[in-house]
Amino acid sequence: MPKIVFIPQNKEITVESGTNLLKAADQAGLYVEGDCAGKGTCGKCKVKIVKGDGGNPTKAEQKHLSEKELSEGWILSCQKKAKEDLTIEVPVQKAAYLRKTTLAGGVEDMEADPMVEKIAVKLSRPAVKDQTADLERLLQQLEREDLSVELRELSKLPGMLRDNNYSVTAAIIGKRIISIEPGDTSDQLYGIAFDIGTTTIMGSLLDLQKAEVIAVAAATNPQNIYGADVISRINYASEGEDELKMLQKKVIEAANEIISDLLKQTKVAKDRVYEIVAVGNTTMSHLFMGVDPTYLAPAPFIPAYSRALEVEASELNLTINPAGRVIFLPNIAGYVGSDTLGVILATEMDQNSSDCAAIDIGTNGELVLAANGRLMACSTAAGPAFEGAQIKQGMRASAGAVEAVQYIDNDFKISTIDDAPARGICGSGLIDAAAALVDAGLINATGKLINPEENPDQVPEKFKTRLKQAEGGMEFILVSGGDSESGEDIVLSQSDLRELQLAKGAIYAGLKILLKEAELKENDLDKILLAGAFGNYVRKESALTIGLLPQLSPEKIVAVGNAAGDGSRMALASKKVRERAFGLPEIVEHLELSTRQDFQEIFVDALKFGQ
Amino acid sequence: MPKIVFIPQNKEITVESGTNLLKAADQAGLYVEGDCAGKGTCGKCKVKIVKGDGGNPTKAEQKHLSEKELSEGWILSCQKKAKEDLTIEVPVQKAAYLRKTTLAGGVEDMEADPMVEKIAVKLSRPAVKDQTADLERLLQQLEREDLSVELRELSKLPGMLRDNNYSVTAAIIGKRIISIEPGDTSDQLYGIAFDIGTTTIMGSLLDLQKAEVIAVAAATNPQNIYGADVISRINYASEGEDELKMLQKKVIEAANEIISDLLKQTKVAKDRVYEIVAVGNTTMSHLFMGVDPTYLAPAPFIPAYSRALEVEASELNLTINPAGRVIFLPNIAGYVGSDTLGVILATEMDQNSSDCAAIDIGTNGELVLAANGRLMACSTAAGPAFEGAQIKQGMRASAGAVEAVQYIDNDFKISTIDDAPARGICGSGLIDAAAALVDAGLINATGKLINPEENPDQVPEKFKTRLKQAEGGMEFILVSGGDSESGEDIVLSQSDLRELQLAKGAIYAGLKILLKEAELKENDLDKILLAGAFGNYVRKESALTIGLLPQLSPEKIVAVGNAAGDGSRMALASKKVRERAFGLPEIVEHLELSTRQDFQEIFVDALKFGQ
Repeated sequence: MPKIVFIPQNKEITVESGTNLLKAADQAGLYVEGDCAGKGTCGKCKVKIVKGDGGNPTKAEQKHLSEKELSEGWILSCQKKAKEDLTIEVPVQKAAYLRKTTLAGGVEDMEADPMVEKIAVKLSRPAVKDQTADLERLLQQLEREDLSVELRELSKLPGMLRDNNYSVTAAIIGKRIISIEPGDTSDQLYGIAFDIGTTTIMGSLLDLQKAEVIAVAAATNPQNIYGADVISRINYASEGEDELKMLQKKVIEAANEIISDLLKQTKVAKDRVYEIVAVGNTTMSHLFMGVDPTYLAPAPFIPAYSRALEVEASELNLTINPAGRVIFLPNIAGYVGSDTLGVILATEMDQNSSDCAAIDIGTNGELVLAANGRLMACSTAAGPAFEGAQIKQGMRASAGAVEAVQYIDNDFKISTIDDAPARGICGSGLIDAAAALVDAGLINATGKLINPEENPDQVPEKFKTRLKQAEGGMEFILVSGGDSESGEDIVLSQSDLRELQLAKGAIYAGLKILLKEAELKENDLDKILLAGAFGNYVRKESALTIGLLPQLSPEKIVAVGNAAGDGSRMALASKKVRERAFGLPEIVEHLELSTRQDFQEIFVDALKFGQ
Repeated sequence: MPKIVFIPQNKEITVESGTNLLKAADQAGLYVEGDCAGKGTCGKCKVKIVKGDGGNPTKAEQKHLSEKELSEGWILSCQKKAKEDLTIEVPVQKAAYLRKTTLAGGVEDMEADPMVEKIAVKLSRPAVKDQTADLERLLQQLEREDLSVELRELSKLPGMLRDNNYSVTAAIIGKRIISIEPGDTSDQLYGIAFDIGTTTIMGSLLDLQKAEVIAVAAATNPQNIYGADVISRINYASEGEDELKMLQKKVIEAANEIISDLLKQTKVAKDRVYEIVAVGNTTMSHLFMGVDPTYLAPAPFIPAYSRALEVEASELNLTINPAGRVIFLPNIAGYVGSDTLGVILATEMDQNSSDCAAIDIGTNGELVLAANGRLMACSTAAGPAFEGAQIKQGMRASAGAVEAVQYIDNDFKISTIDDAPARGICGSGLIDAAAALVDAGLINATGKLINPEENPDQVPEKFKTRLKQAEGGMEFILVSGGDSESGEDIVLSQSDLRELQLAKGAIYAGLKILLKEAELKENDLDKILLAGAFGNYVRKESALTIGLLPQLSPEKIVAVGNAAGDGSRMALASKKVRERAFGLPEIVEHLELSTRQDFQEIFVDALKFGQ
């Protein structure tokens, strides 16, 4: 069997002959970029063969790799099978999610009101005159004889009582003792809030006695090897029980890595973490829980469940206290998940009287409108363009991504994350670049790049060399090869602009339909809240310029950070918020856009580029 | 590593050199008789070496095996270690518990009132106009939106609905859906009642829709290799977690074999068995649940718990529906378990107004007295003599056991189970034999066998040869070697009589103390109920003759069958009975005999042999 060595990570793995190299890297625990689930269409899973023979380039490789790259040994890992021993260089990806971890709020002004209760007691000693059993003695002292107890904990109780002078602490959720601990541990009370994104998983460790975030960690959702979008993952999960279990295993493993990271940062013991509250889109919820998502994909898009699911940590193999509770907050519909519900919790749209919209742009786009006392939500088929997927040189928001582009003083001012040599374009860079091109007059209202040869008058001389004709249409050179990491130009293509146009059009159309349902005019909106890391980094002006949002004054547009994650933290920290969360699916009206007769017209209208 | 072949079972096992042969047989899944947990004191774990070398006989073997046996290759398996390949003949034991399986009642006149509910529903199909999730659609149709559901079942729901025309059946316990099944399975509703005895485990499969016992099966409790009595097992379990888990594994495996047997008899699918209700003494309850029983052994004899424990079948690896519930009924005290509680349920002592005592004689002896509106219970340190343990040639009630002895027409009339050649003496035979010796005047009131040489006048001539002087005192030959299976005499020894005397004295003393507490005279008792298989087979007259019971007229003494088991079946079949069971520990007053100052005097008085 071929042995594959990955450098510079120095991971070694022996695989069956014929194993796909992208799968082999995944098995070795390495993250290789990619959006297309190994179909060879995105061209992002580049690795370099250092030792061994990669064979002849495939059509996909010929399309996506330059002559120089091919001659240096670069391949697309999804295109190659391991047939002999290989040494492969995998580009080190600086974690794309790091900027998201700085946004972990929601609980700053909250009173601690945890679901888990810890009570320390000291029991009287048994005697022939008082033969009360250990458990009953404990419950009497707790004054809670209605409690049941985990068998695992009960089993340890007799020894623990006698070894600790009859002093123990009980951790209680609802009517159940989930943990019995020696001595007084009542000051150790922790929980973890998860935001399970299609692309990124974030976890926050909270001290539940203080309602304080004490550590944050994140990881790429390793399900990405099965596709960047939820539909690819649903399709994979639908292939059979093994495939579903594999997707579940991936996300649980990533969650466990985050848990381990959080505990390491804080030196908290895993058995002192009693609750996990998670949010995510409906597909992520199903995959996390291992529930068949098949019927989410075809119309009429039916989830297996809407309500919050509550299970023991051990049932999901999550490495906190084994009897700890895991609660995935309820979803509202097949494509409006508990992440959107988290946005509502964090923004308190269900409790304020102002007319306000919230837009959460992640791998999917969800919208919520609070208007005239109603709360409405819908999802849009925006696709993952804002995460850098489906964009020729798109990438996630990590070092070297073009993140900001401005057209100032008749020139383009371009900056990359960490000021590193440019590697590609991330979501905020994409919108900025498009807006700058609009500002420079290089895109018309239909979203078409001006061809300097056809319309030489419309293109200033100095930009003429930056607009070039390529196979798929015009391209605008954002960063020339001399300044990029790879030596290749970093370009924005006509096809990229179309992707952006479709994505922003879908979101804007969704908002228009919500407003129409609520009989509200765009100008009547008191506020538009931009949720998600994306909302935090995108420049409002650019979003307005490309027509992603209605033309309100910029101060009405407010970035609210990772509101979905904030919602999960708040629901973890507070019983009251959690009750609110459980009730929301009853209150929120879901609008299914895909079957509305007026959708096409509104969508086409919303595609218009620029103001 | 030595290979051991066991014949005639034809089991082969390879063990570490030095492994004890009794353990090796256990590992191979074979049952070898024995009471002393391998200490070499009971002499019952005889096996024959057919091939290989057993080495020189140990002291224990010299004591327990005859010259003839030693020359034929018989050894005590607990005394030998495997050092080379061996072929060993293990005597086939006809199941000792078979006579118990005929006693499976309690539910004959009961109305079906099961805890598990099964509801078949047909759901409307989802549509864009009705995007209700699958689970919520099901709960709405069930009109039970408060129900939660097993994740395992939820995961299967989407596919099941669509494959079965939206027709499914839910099995519900309390507020939880534990099973969702395709189509209409509402007529398949089963449960199993267990009586977990120290010596014997019995299971009954009930059709819960009809409250009918449809199959019965039993097995030896394989924990017996760790000792015949509960104290040996507690001591073993106290050695560490592994030892506790091993005892638990043993009993669970036996329970699973019984389950498999019950299902095979009836062709019921395991997933259609939703509940197990178990009774057993407090130690058995702890070991079944895997809870540390250490502090049951020393005073003040404290159990880890008293209440009913309820866990999922999968948590105990019991092979019914994995989400099925397992309920071990509550215990009353360290030595008054749910088996005694079952006796109360079955005899309805808690609901009748008559003054009545119940005696349950198994490996331990428990007593209940209902008198003057009070319900009192105690346990006695009777020991397992009535199960044939601690008796020189004692054995359990299987083929060849002397089961009845009567002194009629100036001679002893002796019969064995299945009329097989005598192999030993079982509990009922022991009491009968002692009573017959009293009737024949060969035992005096202090329980001493008459020595014909010292008191030739007191012994009829024809019995003089049957009373012989042995190492430990006098012995009475019940069956001479010519008529026994082994060719050895089957004898009742002075030491056997002492064991019996201590056992019956303990029980009688317990009853006397209960009566004293209730301020009731023996003659005021309306009835004495004899529970357990033993109670069913013992002759009342003999029990009266040896002074096991107070001298009431025989019609006041009533055998009530396996009342503990009956109680478990009733609690399985009926919610109402189960509620009664849960409440009993609050009602029953437990008397701790071991520390009573009056115990010794009453005990000594109760030792008296004969009327």
